[in-house]
Amino acid sequence: MEGGGHPCETTRQGLILVASLVDKVPNLAGLTRTCEVFRAAALAVSDISVTAEQWMPLLEVPEADLSHWMVQKRAEGYRLIGVEQTAGSTLLPELAFPPKSVLLLGREREGIPLELLQLLDHTVEIPQLGVIRSLNVHVSGAIALYEYSRQQHAQQQAKLS
Amino acid sequence: MEGGGHPCETTRQGLILVASLVDKVPNLAGLTRTCEVFRAAALAVSDISVTAEQWMPLLEVPEADLSHWMVQKRAEGYRLIGVEQTAGSTLLPELAFPPKSVLLLGREREGIPLELLQLLDHTVEIPQLGVIRSLNVHVSGAIALYEYSRQQHAQQQAKLS
Repeated sequence: MEGGGHPCETTRQGLILVASLVDKVPNLAGLTRTCEVFRAAALAVSDISVTAEQWMPLLEVPEADLSHWMVQKRAEGYRLIGVEQTAGSTLLPELAFPPKSVLLLGREREGIPLELLQLLDHTVEIPQLGVIRSLNVHVSGAIALYEYSRQQHAQQQAKLS
Repeated sequence: MEGGGHPCETTRQGLILVASLVDKVPNLAGLTRTCEVFRAAALAVSDISVTAEQWMPLLEVPEADLSHWMVQKRAEGYRLIGVEQTAGSTLLPELAFPPKSVLLLGREREGIPLELLQLLDHTVEIPQLGVIRSLNVHVSGAIALYEYSRQQHAQQQAKLS
């Protein structure tokens, strides 16, 4: 999976992905890889020592500090967006992502706790047609990163033309 | 992850996902779950006994039969699309998926072999900004399924308005 050599210095995007609520190591490892592929600004995790990572900028944000950290990010101009199915959620393709976005993923089973949901500017949900299962948290994060990247690219193309 | 009871009989989409070249069981299990979430028409795998599955329609298409099977699908009106980075690949958001699509995923490391690439109507690639790694095959398949679903939904909305 890993190539040798030094990475090209392509610019990172403005999105910070927050996986501090994600517990399972394969999901954290997968999200780290996917964040690097999409050149996210950073990945926040609860314990930085769990994720061996050479390339991706990691932030250590334990769950106890998460609400404080998110409020601070909003003051820095970030919009706070959670991936969660709620009555008020916007469908993912219909949310216009601002370049400076903080994207919060939920716990593997329980999703995003209420006290953090209340802090968010938006919740988005990925349109799911099946009723038996829901998407894995790594896959949900990857799809949201793809959609964010797709929108940023389309906006850049529109500016150029 | 699994709920009990009987699934709602929502219509399946027209896309068949082909994972006959995918080897790793976690990737196959993940793709099965993701296909069910997006209500793909079917998932083709090389060995149906590997994937314990209650809800998702599975097709057994061993690698040796893949080219024959794909040619047959084209005769049935399916467009053959591969997820692969090639010089001639279309970026995923820019490919207009036909409702009847067969989407071929590559091997975990080597991708799609040349003899199958030659059969395809299109190759698509997911825009990736990083240079160190590439997306996991389950994640690639999930993003392609999301994009397909997004386009089909947008077309349905356009017809209704």
